[in-house]
Amino acid sequence: MTRNIFTGKVLTLNIDTVTLPNGVTIDLEMVRHPGAAAVVPLKDSETVVLIRQFRHAAGGFIYEIPAGKLDRGEDPLHCAARELEEEIGYIPGRLERLTSILTAPGFTDEVIHIYKATDMTPGRQRLDRDEVLEILEIPLKEAIRMIGGGLIRDAKTIVGLQLVRGEK
Amino acid sequence: MTRNIFTGKVLTLNIDTVTLPNGVTIDLEMVRHPGAAAVVPLKDSETVVLIRQFRHAAGGFIYEIPAGKLDRGEDPLHCAARELEEEIGYIPGRLERLTSILTAPGFTDEVIHIYKATDMTPGRQRLDRDEVLEILEIPLKEAIRMIGGGLIRDAKTIVGLQLVRGEK
Repeated sequence: MTRNIFTGKVLTLNIDTVTLPNGVTIDLEMVRHPGAAAVVPLKDSETVVLIRQFRHAAGGFIYEIPAGKLDRGEDPLHCAARELEEEIGYIPGRLERLTSILTAPGFTDEVIHIYKATDMTPGRQRLDRDEVLEILEIPLKEAIRMIGGGLIRDAKTIVGLQLVRGEK
Repeated sequence: MTRNIFTGKVLTLNIDTVTLPNGVTIDLEMVRHPGAAAVVPLKDSETVVLIRQFRHAAGGFIYEIPAGKLDRGEDPLHCAARELEEEIGYIPGRLERLTSILTAPGFTDEVIHIYKATDMTPGRQRLDRDEVLEILEIPLKEAIRMIGGGLIRDAKTIVGLQLVRGEK
């Protein structure tokens, strides 16, 4: 049984009454999310393009890879290409899926599909009015160091960068 | 300005009216979460202990590292040690912090502090009634392959395993 608490622009909050495989019945607070796509943009084999984006939830600017929510019915691959151009102004020549992650399966069904973009050509950046970000090109090795040093803290960004590093 | 929509057992849902650094004022749906700790349990230098846990949000069982929410005012290190023993029945001889991640900074302030546990000795498993899980010991190399193959999809688990792998 699902009870709807709130339906917003981004999220829906439900309380689901669930019988677990051990027979226990509980109420679970569940945040329904449309899902998202994210992209590790490789300018060349050694250089990644990151954004430094203002995030209210994080209390300031954080390092991220380009990403955004799926539009209704949108293919994640299309979303990845769209967000890449909108946020950093590049069109991917090639997009390969790296993996799909569950961000916080204790309380949300959000899935982020993560891609790697290569053979990028210039397009046109078109930021939404609620997007505040700057673009940085840095060596992939430096980005990996920023994970170890705690400067990169965003989950999808760490996963994407580590998977690209692991391919080498 | 913050408007409270819902206060639950785990989550609080607010709508925050925020003025961004670009001067735009918007309403943001924000899920407040107490934060959590997670642990990569190393039985020896080549062997990791994972759990396969039922997650309603994921529609079934998923692979994870032991983790749990912070109790009010609880030190994340203490939480990590507590959850390790409660979920898999081991007491860590040594706990080292790997990093802290933002799981989904677009809509929640949740932070997960991730540790590595070594020199583990047997303790006593004590599952909550809403925890349904089994324990697996597998080679770390196999766990890394399971990430690449898409079998491990939980963000904190991928980040923790990749950071332990990166130390080698």
